[in-house]
Amino acid sequence: MDKKIKVGIVGYGNIGKGVEKAIKQNPDMELEAIFTRRDVSELDNNSKLVHISRLEIYKDKIDVMILCGGSATDLAEQGPMLASQFNTVDSFDTHAKIPEYFERMNSVAKEGETVALISTGWDPGLFSLNRLLGSAILPEGKEYTFWGKGVSQGHSDAIRRVEGVKNGIQYTIPVEETLEKVRCGECSEFTTREKHERVCYVVAKEGADLHKIEEDIKTMPNYFSDYNTTVNFISEEELKKNHSGMPHGGFVIRTGKTGGGLNQFMEFSLKLESNAEFTSSVMVAYARAVYKMAKEGKKGAVTVFDIPFAYLSSKSPEELRKELL
Amino acid sequence: MDKKIKVGIVGYGNIGKGVEKAIKQNPDMELEAIFTRRDVSELDNNSKLVHISRLEIYKDKIDVMILCGGSATDLAEQGPMLASQFNTVDSFDTHAKIPEYFERMNSVAKEGETVALISTGWDPGLFSLNRLLGSAILPEGKEYTFWGKGVSQGHSDAIRRVEGVKNGIQYTIPVEETLEKVRCGECSEFTTREKHERVCYVVAKEGADLHKIEEDIKTMPNYFSDYNTTVNFISEEELKKNHSGMPHGGFVIRTGKTGGGLNQFMEFSLKLESNAEFTSSVMVAYARAVYKMAKEGKKGAVTVFDIPFAYLSSKSPEELRKELL
Repeated sequence: MDKKIKVGIVGYGNIGKGVEKAIKQNPDMELEAIFTRRDVSELDNNSKLVHISRLEIYKDKIDVMILCGGSATDLAEQGPMLASQFNTVDSFDTHAKIPEYFERMNSVAKEGETVALISTGWDPGLFSLNRLLGSAILPEGKEYTFWGKGVSQGHSDAIRRVEGVKNGIQYTIPVEETLEKVRCGECSEFTTREKHERVCYVVAKEGADLHKIEEDIKTMPNYFSDYNTTVNFISEEELKKNHSGMPHGGFVIRTGKTGGGLNQFMEFSLKLESNAEFTSSVMVAYARAVYKMAKEGKKGAVTVFDIPFAYLSSKSPEELRKELL
Repeated sequence: MDKKIKVGIVGYGNIGKGVEKAIKQNPDMELEAIFTRRDVSELDNNSKLVHISRLEIYKDKIDVMILCGGSATDLAEQGPMLASQFNTVDSFDTHAKIPEYFERMNSVAKEGETVALISTGWDPGLFSLNRLLGSAILPEGKEYTFWGKGVSQGHSDAIRRVEGVKNGIQYTIPVEETLEKVRCGECSEFTTREKHERVCYVVAKEGADLHKIEEDIKTMPNYFSDYNTTVNFISEEELKKNHSGMPHGGFVIRTGKTGGGLNQFMEFSLKLESNAEFTSSVMVAYARAVYKMAKEGKKGAVTVFDIPFAYLSSKSPEELRKELL
């Protein structure tokens, strides 16, 4: 067997931990080190943890670095620094800033002779691939992306900032009726309200005005006022027991007509018990692709659009043709 | 705008006609000629039709040739001959012979300095891509492919050979119960009978023994005996009216567990009013990819596994990142 692909992790939150576990599922890869900005001596007894200041020592020991920084702010700063020295994979997801981020990563990676894959995961990532596929195969058609059922971190945070709220979580849910309409080939435009609903589970502080909390949530601009929102009050125990998972998922649908006017329908969907672990698994498969591209001499930034699927697999092209084509 | 991609079609059956229509949906492409083995003077008044003996004249006029020969036998013969002179796209689908066909096409294409994409369409093709994606992202998992609801040409032919049968058509249908079990995460092995059922619509000859026809069909080895099969007798008029379309589709499902033992679920599905037109549209999108790869100097045989999705689109990489990522 070839030598294993040596992977580094930067950031040890949910995604970093997911990547650590995913690497163990892939026998052709091994974890070299996990870099963190925190004080390593205060963290769990994990021998792979290394303070980020010691990054340079690992320059020739790591084939691909998976960037698991918690937010777009982390990545905007860490991405270029890391891509100048390592092949990288990240999940940059601030949509409007992708072109700018790509340009920065591209120039740094070309200069540093590395490959930098940006914005992978499931959206952006697998969903983007399906949007592209749908539009290329059915140019006369319409694309619909639905998200959920899933926890939205941003909306959960917004709930927790409401006066009288102790804790809470928010689920984004595709409106089943609309999903069915799209599946039956109805090519309408749908409003925000028609596509998704929002369901909140809220733990109120003692003595708080529940009616007011509900109103404050439902009328919150940007976050909730454009949606049908349901607010459920529950106890802290119930929240811990029933809502500590982080499920997510969604649907990318393309409906279109081929040349003879006939209806054609493509759908890609995900149902994930753990958003973070799935995103991590996608990043690990793409780390393998980045490793292969770098070995072939590719330099610069790339996205999922630029990577042949064969690169994601540990199997040889011959095996893939024989077993999966 | 760049010059248009000049496409040739070889074979003028359902797929060839579908490709002709699909090209019209793609403004960056144009149809140069349709090659056929039949006597052109006897065919419809289509100015693009050319007898296949005149192929060589078009060597420098066609960027990509789409091979629409009706059967694997056609392709095994025509494929290498065409790939020696033109960039080609085909839908070779005799699974067991793919490795051998790939090797032949690869050596011919390398010699002729062309790109030969083999075995595209939806299965093999888009379904293969999803099988690969699922296995790379969820290595600890299981893959299920279901086909239908759709017409199987081979099974329809088998019905028509039964004594007393005048005409008939067969639909392959995934067993809904099994599909639901898989969607709910049940990772069992299912038998042939558990996965698909077969529904036949049969027009009997006058005076034929209907009971015997039904028995002959249901007990036919290889084709029907391993399935739950339903036989419906209808009139020739009903057959023409309700069963002249060629719908198809299916599902590729990957269920698996990520590193923390959580369940994750991926599904890709197609619902097609016309199998042939959709296959044609996939081939046309891949013809664009072959054109781009040839322009970049690639030579030899490739499969869908080797082609980045960006190549399928008429949009620039910048547009794709901005609009679809």
